[in-house]
Amino acid sequence: MESGIFKTAENFGLTEGISELILTTKNAKDDKISANAAPIGIIQKNGKLFLRLFKGSKTYENLKREDFFAANITDDSVLYAKSTFYDLDESQFECKEYQPLSTLAEKIPALKKADRVVLFKCVGRKETEDLLIIDVEPIEFVIQNAGKSGFIVNRGFNAVIEACIYMTRYELTKNQEYADKIYQMQEIVLKCGRAEDKEAFEIIMKRFQKP
Amino acid sequence: MESGIFKTAENFGLTEGISELILTTKNAKDDKISANAAPIGIIQKNGKLFLRLFKGSKTYENLKREDFFAANITDDSVLYAKSTFYDLDESQFECKEYQPLSTLAEKIPALKKADRVVLFKCVGRKETEDLLIIDVEPIEFVIQNAGKSGFIVNRGFNAVIEACIYMTRYELTKNQEYADKIYQMQEIVLKCGRAEDKEAFEIIMKRFQKP
Repeated sequence: MESGIFKTAENFGLTEGISELILTTKNAKDDKISANAAPIGIIQKNGKLFLRLFKGSKTYENLKREDFFAANITDDSVLYAKSTFYDLDESQFECKEYQPLSTLAEKIPALKKADRVVLFKCVGRKETEDLLIIDVEPIEFVIQNAGKSGFIVNRGFNAVIEACIYMTRYELTKNQEYADKIYQMQEIVLKCGRAEDKEAFEIIMKRFQKP
Repeated sequence: MESGIFKTAENFGLTEGISELILTTKNAKDDKISANAAPIGIIQKNGKLFLRLFKGSKTYENLKREDFFAANITDDSVLYAKSTFYDLDESQFECKEYQPLSTLAEKIPALKKADRVVLFKCVGRKETEDLLIIDVEPIEFVIQNAGKSGFIVNRGFNAVIEACIYMTRYELTKNQEYADKIYQMQEIVLKCGRAEDKEAFEIIMKRFQKP
């Protein structure tokens, strides 16, 4: 990856380490809705960006086939919670042909509500027993909401992100340790969060009642 | 607070709930350095913004006397860790007379490295036994680093913010529960954080060795 693109990615919040963003991917033609959204970590290490996708996930299925996707940057915690556990409604997506790609027949779905969108191309795939590792490169940076000019440092928002991860692990393992962590996150959300963080947390907590 | 200012504050990341930002305040004239920096929660509730300052803290001392301060928005986790436990070096501050205040003799210190700065005025003070509650109003919004155009969602950065809080509580109470949480945060920083998050965490961990 060129260092200029690298710096732009960083300025868009795609930093070294793992950026927890909502990835939107195109579904297969026979799917009931055309796009999927899911929070996924974009990993940046030694100047390379890549994804580690678990087999069986929708993002895995889609990016095995599709070469383009979008990383959506937002502080909308409800979008994080919903897209972790459910399909987002078709109306949440916008499928644009972005300028530098207009020579391609491809359109990339993104979230209408995202403040920033980074479009990516998959440039290499490697499969292991239960993982698909995809090298990715940013191809365009879009400011969808120019009004958003600062960035959030709210423990409540952060705790929603954590709780989505812990609930996913809890559902896979039923390990009580994760449930305990979810309750710790709840305390933080109730104390520090915004109305939308509390709403997002309710979506997460409903998963406990799921049969 | 007018609703326009309110919306601008939100767009700068000063959301409902508690925004954990680094507050810079002017020190008393006899102090060895001219300004102080400390991470403080700015609380937004029912359309009002206020601070809850514990008695004895430097920010408490300064804002009992001074009417203006800056809220610094940054994803520089080293600044968070250093300003939680130590005085920042004089060279980190810049003391500007901002345009709408130029009629005033006042200058407000801010952090040179902050991406965004919101200048505040204290408009009301209320003291309880161990707290000073100050109603505040934003008076100016400054984009210091226009290159930063997106925002970070990195669990490592978030874990540094948490660990600063837990270490502060641990130092006050010596409660092992906080030490355990700090080690949990360390795991997240090592897995997801940027180089600067790891550096910030080392600053935090050194406090364990403090006599």
